Amino acid sequence: MDLLNTKPFADAFGSFLPLPAKLEPHLEEALRHVLEHPGTLVRPRIVFEMAVAYDLEPANAQDLAIGLEYFHTASLIFDDLPCMDNALERRGAPCAHIAFGEATAILAALAVINRAYALSWRAVSSASREDQSRTLAYIEKRLGVEGLLNGQSLDLHYATLPHNRRTTQRVAHDKTVSLIRLPLVVPAMLGGAPANELQQLERLALAWGLSYQIVDDLKDVLQSSAEAGKTVARDSSLDRPNLALAIGIPEAVDRLTRLMQLGDRALQRLIELRPAVAFLEKLRNDLQTESARVAQSACAAAGWGQA
Amino acid sequence: MDLLNTKPFADAFGSFLPLPAKLEPHLEEALRHVLEHPGTLVRPRIVFEMAVAYDLEPANAQDLAIGLEYFHTASLIFDDLPCMDNALERRGAPCAHIAFGEATAILAALAVINRAYALSWRAVSSASREDQSRTLAYIEKRLGVEGLLNGQSLDLHYATLPHNRRTTQRVAHDKTVSLIRLPLVVPAMLGGAPANELQQLERLALAWGLSYQIVDDLKDVLQSSAEAGKTVARDSSLDRPNLALAIGIPEAVDRLTRLMQLGDRALQRLIELRPAVAFLEKLRNDLQTESARVAQSACAAAGWGQA
Repeated sequence: MDLLNTKPFADAFGSFLPLPAKLEPHLEEALRHVLEHPGTLVRPRIVFEMAVAYDLEPANAQDLAIGLEYFHTASLIFDDLPCMDNALERRGAPCAHIAFGEATAILAALAVINRAYALSWRAVSSASREDQSRTLAYIEKRLGVEGLLNGQSLDLHYATLPHNRRTTQRVAHDKTVSLIRLPLVVPAMLGGAPANELQQLERLALAWGLSYQIVDDLKDVLQSSAEAGKTVARDSSLDRPNLALAIGIPEAVDRLTRLMQLGDRALQRLIELRPAVAFLEKLRNDLQTESARVAQSACAAAGWGQA
Repeated sequence: MDLLNTKPFADAFGSFLPLPAKLEPHLEEALRHVLEHPGTLVRPRIVFEMAVAYDLEPANAQDLAIGLEYFHTASLIFDDLPCMDNALERRGAPCAHIAFGEATAILAALAVINRAYALSWRAVSSASREDQSRTLAYIEKRLGVEGLLNGQSLDLHYATLPHNRRTTQRVAHDKTVSLIRLPLVVPAMLGGAPANELQQLERLALAWGLSYQIVDDLKDVLQSSAEAGKTVARDSSLDRPNLALAIGIPEAVDRLTRLMQLGDRALQRLIELRPAVAFLEKLRNDLQTESARVAQSACAAAGWGQA
């Protein structure tokens, strides 16, 4: 697959959860809606290129790419529910709970999760028993009470926590970083990467995950709903963690710049160790462009002119 | 473990999802509540005895027993939500969403599911690759769009379907039978059971699953909340599938009797093939006693005296 051509990934995203003929019609309609709105597919593209860099079988790479993206997709359906973020739009379309009701949205998300675990397992099925165990335990940790689910709970109960950099970073670490660690680290782990490569990958995931979250936080504060493609300016009204709200826009921009530098150092070392991951520079440049654009908007909003 | 002594199963149920020190306090409290209310534990007891009958390693049997019970537990938390059955009590305590709010209940259920998949993976990790694949595909099917999730969606949209025996049986097949097929069939499958034994186990699961559902339907119509230990008499008000409401109490009692006979024939053949599964007679007798008791109440309610 070509990393810049998203169509094969969108096709796989749409077809890796086969819908049986006797599926209940409401659930079927909701699942079709979810499978037809794949988002940017950046995570499966990372998985696929990482899998090439670490010599995984293409069939296993595809299963892993779509499996991990399905986890992410399901987490968004849950996050958007009225009892959580109460969002209206996602991936440029009405949220599943808006279009099909809460119960059907939840069942659709559970169907996506069930398939995500099955695909993840299938992706590791031909690995050594040791690599299987290590990889599946890693996936469990990133998704569970030490990762994504703890992050989402901290996010929901942010009102009970101190509103500072430490707290917002803790939420972003468990929630956003967990979902970036999976596509960056799992293919390498499954391909038998040595410890020093895994270490740089973990640093990269941390730097990019936290950067991505700050970009998102700044967008929430700065941008209009149409521009971001989803419901925004909600962090303040819902009292949700947002670094720009917690420490101010200038400090958040400064933090973003430092994190991008940290990421660049990790990426450079990683490419020295494993040149085949040089494709990550393209993603780094995309994130850098987005960061600079948001930082510039932030500075303009603060009346400073050019960043 | 002793099948009649539930304490070891309750201990395992309570301890197989370790809660990390930094867990968000609301999520922690909800998970403790769930783990401290294990229900009757009939399914893990079946898994453990089946695992003995099919020579599985005790550690794998424990993981499978608790993993499958965690799937069941999570399904109950979701079913009880306001957007689904809107129940108040479960397993003799307030439902998770009543005690901790909807969002935290959902996150707790997802944590239980995440652990259930991990335990299921671990339970099959030492099996042959062929048995691994077959078993995990079977688990995926029973839980997903061809099983439990389809059943729950049919259940929720029963108002749009014809209210007859065929429909109620279809819902019960996908929902209740799926969760009884798992503990009866998976240990045998993992233990390399031949096709004729698996066939009788499938028949037994079907007969017992449908019987159990009719007992539950009759209880819903006949009994008070205190007696059943959960919110009852809800099927009529929520327009949910209930065989006794669809075809009348006498026909439902008749159907229950026939299904118990079907189950008895499957069990008899199975014990001939694999004498080690004779422990299932105890469960059969419990279900028979419960069926007779409910049938008697039904007859008394209808003014027929003794059944």
